[in-house]
Amino acid sequence: MNASEFRRRGKEMVDYVANYMEGIEGRQVYPDVEPGYLRPLIPAAAPQEPDTFEDIINDVEKIIMPGGCCLGRGSNQPIRCVQSLGAGGSLEKGLAPACKPPVPPYLEAASPACTELETVMMDWLGKMLELPKAFLNEKAGEGGGVIQGSASEATLVALLAARTKVIHRLQAASPELTQAAIMEKLVAYSSDQAHSSVERAGLIGGVKLKAIPSDGNFAMRASALQEALERDKAAGLIPFFMVATLGTTTCCSFDNLLEVGPICNKEDIWLHVDAAYAGSAFICPEFRHLLNGVEFADSFNFNPHKWLLVNFDCSAMWVKKRTDLTGAFRLDPTYLKHSHQDSGLITDYRHWQIPLGRRFRSLKMWFVFRMYGVKGLQAYIRKHVQLSHEFESLVRQDPRFEICVEVILGLVCFRLKGSNKVNEALLQRINSAKKIHLVPCHLRDKFVLRFAICSRTVESAHVQRAWEHIKELAADVLRAERE
Amino acid sequence: MNASEFRRRGKEMVDYVANYMEGIEGRQVYPDVEPGYLRPLIPAAAPQEPDTFEDIINDVEKIIMPGGCCLGRGSNQPIRCVQSLGAGGSLEKGLAPACKPPVPPYLEAASPACTELETVMMDWLGKMLELPKAFLNEKAGEGGGVIQGSASEATLVALLAARTKVIHRLQAASPELTQAAIMEKLVAYSSDQAHSSVERAGLIGGVKLKAIPSDGNFAMRASALQEALERDKAAGLIPFFMVATLGTTTCCSFDNLLEVGPICNKEDIWLHVDAAYAGSAFICPEFRHLLNGVEFADSFNFNPHKWLLVNFDCSAMWVKKRTDLTGAFRLDPTYLKHSHQDSGLITDYRHWQIPLGRRFRSLKMWFVFRMYGVKGLQAYIRKHVQLSHEFESLVRQDPRFEICVEVILGLVCFRLKGSNKVNEALLQRINSAKKIHLVPCHLRDKFVLRFAICSRTVESAHVQRAWEHIKELAADVLRAERE
Repeated sequence: MNASEFRRRGKEMVDYVANYMEGIEGRQVYPDVEPGYLRPLIPAAAPQEPDTFEDIINDVEKIIMPGGCCLGRGSNQPIRCVQSLGAGGSLEKGLAPACKPPVPPYLEAASPACTELETVMMDWLGKMLELPKAFLNEKAGEGGGVIQGSASEATLVALLAARTKVIHRLQAASPELTQAAIMEKLVAYSSDQAHSSVERAGLIGGVKLKAIPSDGNFAMRASALQEALERDKAAGLIPFFMVATLGTTTCCSFDNLLEVGPICNKEDIWLHVDAAYAGSAFICPEFRHLLNGVEFADSFNFNPHKWLLVNFDCSAMWVKKRTDLTGAFRLDPTYLKHSHQDSGLITDYRHWQIPLGRRFRSLKMWFVFRMYGVKGLQAYIRKHVQLSHEFESLVRQDPRFEICVEVILGLVCFRLKGSNKVNEALLQRINSAKKIHLVPCHLRDKFVLRFAICSRTVESAHVQRAWEHIKELAADVLRAERE
Repeated sequence: MNASEFRRRGKEMVDYVANYMEGIEGRQVYPDVEPGYLRPLIPAAAPQEPDTFEDIINDVEKIIMPGGCCLGRGSNQPIRCVQSLGAGGSLEKGLAPACKPPVPPYLEAASPACTELETVMMDWLGKMLELPKAFLNEKAGEGGGVIQGSASEATLVALLAARTKVIHRLQAASPELTQAAIMEKLVAYSSDQAHSSVERAGLIGGVKLKAIPSDGNFAMRASALQEALERDKAAGLIPFFMVATLGTTTCCSFDNLLEVGPICNKEDIWLHVDAAYAGSAFICPEFRHLLNGVEFADSFNFNPHKWLLVNFDCSAMWVKKRTDLTGAFRLDPTYLKHSHQDSGLITDYRHWQIPLGRRFRSLKMWFVFRMYGVKGLQAYIRKHVQLSHEFESLVRQDPRFEICVEVILGLVCFRLKGSNKVNEALLQRINSAKKIHLVPCHLRDKFVLRFAICSRTVESAHVQRAWEHIKELAADVLRAERE
């Protein structure tokens, strides 16, 4: 969608919301639909080709609104009203998300549309990635997907679920064990390249977290993991949780899931796979092999808000066993009870996450998936990967520079051959000039620059201009160094 | 703002965003401003009277945009680009939040506007509530405010900070103590009327949580607390955290802060005050006394998204000592480092919360506070309280009904005199008719109906109609019972 179409469609949406507000007294205060009403109304998978904007808007009125709720922000109020009076929020709040019916979205009962669309969208997205069926909700299996706010929340939720599970397991075998006695011995793992939020999850969860040394390609491998497990078990510790990263933040390296997965399964260690950035690429068949081994995982997460055109926040998380998550959090006070909750028919996402409140985030997935179609999204990913290879080849043609890690997706890690100091000086010049902005990293003892392709409108001409600019500044730095 | 003004302003905002996208190549990729640039540009407190929409939009361009950032969603990408290419998200994602420059908002360095506006808005709001100065950021004190997603997150963050603090304190005194040995003995408290999310925070934090029996008015009092503390300390436990609730979910009762606060201070117990719903009312001088005792608290939280016209999510949390929060979470990998971080000049909100990513939520506070003015917001609260008293007096005039708890703000707890069964039958009829929707609660052994005023557009006529409707259904229920 270009700016001029955005102008037209945006204004249509403003009218839609204004009409909704004007007609609110005529709408029913509480939805009339039965649990499970939504799935049969929409296709079982995302369209390959784009749908029209008209079709999507018509479906909002036909499919979403009957399952919405005209309470005054409904269950998001601790104290809930009453008449069909419309949203409790104001129109003034920055003229916010058009096309969001005011729904109370963490109780399925109060807003079936919000929950059910999320369940179906997570199935759509899971199918795009060819996730194993065990992760999907579709056939009333044990798995399912949920939207979290960020990958750090998903990691924390997985860690807490794993912690509860192992405590229950050990206490079932030895009822005299206290929770604290068990927690003292629990140990979680990730590679030394994992995102800092993994360490943070360990801090919050009150358990040890150990970093497994990665190999020469910055990947976690079987041997290093085995070694750590043997050592820790010998010391009386209890390994219970592993975060494997597909596409690390520093250099987009991939832990070896096919090696690490079976070990985790054998050792009864919860395996959480974090593909926050790289996950979007797995919708392309040529990149799907990077996800191989996910069948060993208990939970999997990536962020469509990073690279799949869905705006922040939207972090997609799947588990093989829903009850592992809900078991960690479930509490049911009277004011949150409803008539369907024990029927197994519906999903109360409040048991799947840290906060209680939720927003209607699946709506933006639905819009994006339909307006691009799977083919459009694949083309978007492919273009970015192609542009990063274009940048890579420009760097390789210049003998003053080196590529530091294999370029697999949209990230190029590069540096001037030479000292860290000269690279730090180059980065400083680049970021001071403010024409482009690069974020560095350390790979082992090397200071490395990172060129990432991630913007919706990036073209080859931008890449070429950026490289010319970097070359010029590099020449300045090298000249200054010689002087 | 009525629907027709929303139509006009909404369309202006759509144009603003489209213009931004079209002109993005001309904008600078990284902000040019110095830390602290924003505060001097805007008033020190919210306006009493409304500002015009034009003024606000002009200020967005003048004050916010220079401190924004044109990275492709910037730091929300693990791998960051580069050219001045605009937002990484798509325009298609449901035509989302107009007037949100695409900023990477959890690093002050990458988006000073987002962080600095949040800091100033939290000061504005704190002043509206007449919070003690210790909670404000303004004079470079030790306190400050942050926007969380929900009150449950705020409670959890406070509990984790308190946990870290007590562990450090005890380990400083007795270095041989392990974290697990301490955690085994930690005990947190709330009243038996506290929201279920408090119990959940205890579960997540891996500590015991005990419910203090509330008094006849459903309030926590000194005597019951003292009793619990004596008993628990005698048993070798370590009291470390208290959640006092102002305006409980069930019946809008208020814990006695003036009694409970000094005890917590004396016993070195972190006092967190949760006023999720009621907090908004404290902007009115006549309700401010309900907040008395907050001066004893370490942290305070309420949800402007519940009753202050700011849309979900926006949960306002203040602490007296910022370093207590940041100490619980701080980790600094290279890819998140920046040149100002140790200067003390700026705030990295990522150390204040559970997730790493953030949205630009202070913008909606800024819009709402300015478009209503403090007087407009006060009038909004007062109208709701007045309507709940109107409903209360209707109920009191009918001898078949009783009011169950003193009506203080916008919630009326009422029931038919008689059995729980007859009240359950009445609720069922009300909610099946779907003209209004009520959520019940249990108060001790009584099943109680809750009538809440919380919608932006509620009027006396709605209250009158709702009461007529309830009376009719009550007559049906009572007749059916007699037969």
